Amino acid sequence: MSTESRLNFVILLGSLRKASLNAAIARALPDLAPPGISITSLGSIGDFPHYDADVQEEGFPAPVLAMAQQIAASDGVIIVTPEYNYSIPGVLKNAIDWLSRLSPQPFANKPVAIQTASPGLIGGARAQYHLRQSLVFLDAFVLNKPEAMISQAAQKIDPESLQLTDIGTREFLTRQISALAALANRLRE
Amino acid sequence: MSTESRLNFVILLGSLRKASLNAAIARALPDLAPPGISITSLGSIGDFPHYDADVQEEGFPAPVLAMAQQIAASDGVIIVTPEYNYSIPGVLKNAIDWLSRLSPQPFANKPVAIQTASPGLIGGARAQYHLRQSLVFLDAFVLNKPEAMISQAAQKIDPESLQLTDIGTREFLTRQISALAALANRLRE
Amino acid sequence: MSTESRLNFVILLGSLRKASLNAAIARALPDLAPPGISITSLGSIGDFPHYDADVQEEGFPAPVLAMAQQIAASDGVIIVTPEYNYSIPGVLKNAIDWLSRLSPQPFANKPVAIQTASPGLIGGARAQYHLRQSLVFLDAFVLNKPEAMISQAAQKIDPESLQLTDIGTREFLTRQISALAALANRLRE
Amino acid sequence: MSTESRLNFVILLGSLRKASLNAAIARALPDLAPPGISITSLGSIGDFPHYDADVQEEGFPAPVLAMAQQIAASDGVIIVTPEYNYSIPGVLKNAIDWLSRLSPQPFANKPVAIQTASPGLIGGARAQYHLRQSLVFLDAFVLNKPEAMISQAAQKIDPESLQLTDIGTREFLTRQISALAALANRLRE
Repeated sequence: MSTESRLNFVILLGSLRKASLNAAIARALPDLAPPGISITSLGSIGDFPHYDADVQEEGFPAPVLAMAQQIAASDGVIIVTPEYNYSIPGVLKNAIDWLSRLSPQPFANKPVAIQTASPGLIGGARAQYHLRQSLVFLDAFVLNKPEAMISQAAQKIDPESLQLTDIGTREFLTRQISALAALANRLRE
Repeated sequence: MSTESRLNFVILLGSLRKASLNAAIARALPDLAPPGISITSLGSIGDFPHYDADVQEEGFPAPVLAMAQQIAASDGVIIVTPEYNYSIPGVLKNAIDWLSRLSPQPFANKPVAIQTASPGLIGGARAQYHLRQSLVFLDAFVLNKPEAMISQAAQKIDPESLQLTDIGTREFLTRQISALAALANRLRE
Repeated sequence: MSTESRLNFVILLGSLRKASLNAAIARALPDLAPPGISITSLGSIGDFPHYDADVQEEGFPAPVLAMAQQIAASDGVIIVTPEYNYSIPGVLKNAIDWLSRLSPQPFANKPVAIQTASPGLIGGARAQYHLRQSLVFLDAFVLNKPEAMISQAAQKIDPESLQLTDIGTREFLTRQISALAALANRLRE
Repeated sequence: MSTESRLNFVILLGSLRKASLNAAIARALPDLAPPGISITSLGSIGDFPHYDADVQEEGFPAPVLAMAQQIAASDGVIIVTPEYNYSIPGVLKNAIDWLSRLSPQPFANKPVAIQTASPGLIGGARAQYHLRQSLVFLDAFVLNKPEAMISQAAQKIDPESLQLTDIGTREFLTRQISALAALANRLRE
């Protein structure tokens, strides 16, 4: 019997668009998980209101509390997001701003992997380091390697089915999930 | 008669909180403008929906179009914002994400000054360079100096009246507005 | 007769390696300049000692002073550099550290364009924003667009002659030089 | 008897200046280590030549190899550095550029803490996130909290003895060393 129990990772998606390339990546992840790892989606960050400390004082919105609970209960978070204006989308940052106000902090000591996909060559690299800077404040353990910057993503996703069909990318993402699992197991006390 | 005509700058505020330190800074700016410069506030970024390309396809929301028109008509933008999680607030980034989709781009070639205020010593410095990176994409002319990172801002703003009372900060902000005016005049063709 | 006089740009090269891809880019630039623009190379940053304030107190090294004089006399600087460890090379940063101590500051108000080349897909993007952050401190006018991130550069440079042979890249760099010239002309008083 | 064995951390210093504030911080660290932790200094990064792949091909310089061996043998690295031009010093980045070329990579999986000191209020914050970005590439485990940004450092160090005399800073640094030790113990397999 293995000493390592089953791991459950949750997906935080940074795009609201139905036909989003990143949403397609996120949908592929449960199937790409190696044995012993389950991957489930968090709720939509579109359900969060704009962060406003005055609203917070009246109580955290239910979708924020629900997501925080799911993150806290998980063994790790996979953030899948487009790059907007050389940074992360405002709507994703807004979700982080809400989650950051909770105590205990759901991201604290949590293993996190980042995946960005873009139509161009850079694959969202600029967004990744901005996101990492925020995650320092939240005290998350962000996986260093392999980094998943999926370039020319429109050519790797079927435009009809919106499925991630590129074999190389699928194998690469499985490797990143395995690396996140190794980090999660290493950090377990 | 001066060859330099009157300048009008607009304020983009990154916080929604009523008693926000940054809102207090923003409120002070019209009075701090040197002669020949008027400063007016843009609408609230809280009126923008979350950016979603599917929503955009149905037409840009009216508050986005109104703000874009005001920015385009202005001689420069002063962005006043808190730092959240070592970056700019999601709600401010969301406004930028909406505005970035417009063509002609309202920020293109526009002089921009950044002001960040925080209760601590760092004064929002981390947010400033993230914001600058997004403004490269938008092709804005961001003022280099003087940089306005207002540290220990709670001690510079009266807690009752929520007015910026610190003389040194008021004089410093006037100097920054003058520098933005000099940049705007220099860039005029 | 044109009211715009001839412009002279200087190249600051961030790599010391003889067969450097970025050195190949830099060598191509004089030929790629549009009419009315001359481009010349600065001395090697390899001739600067490590920055040390104790050394500075004994006097600025001659190569530092020579480069500062050439930058000050130029109409703009083109920085051509590889990305090392997701940032600019230490040897380039060391040159900036030396130059930054001079007063008057040679980079102040100077138009600057950035070019990065790499063998991979990202083309040095990560180095560009670190460099831009340092250039805020130096008060340079860094060109926003077009950004020159030359991906897969090994396929664009002839391995025998070490010449930039890719036509698309050559045309793109000419466009960037023209944009730098337009910025330089715009900033002239 | 404790199950946790003694830890040895090494200090990588980013400044060459004799009277450097950061050198004063570094000198204080061995005395600030909690019981069971020893802290020793690495050699001077001033002994490294400028990174040049052509030089590397003739063999790694002896000071590079010596430092790499000490880092590899250590239980963690404390990087103590000033901020120059809103980033890390070129001479420190140059050391990282050299060390990054070694395989096995001495920083891989190594716990790292960052300390920056500056005379001003910001305490070197801008340098920290640039350094973190490079350490992603090197696959180091960089401690998130507490972050050591030592502001107004000139008032915390005795100008005659060049000793760190500020009690609050000394206690804070001991806490950070303890946090690095906790991270190192957690990562041990």
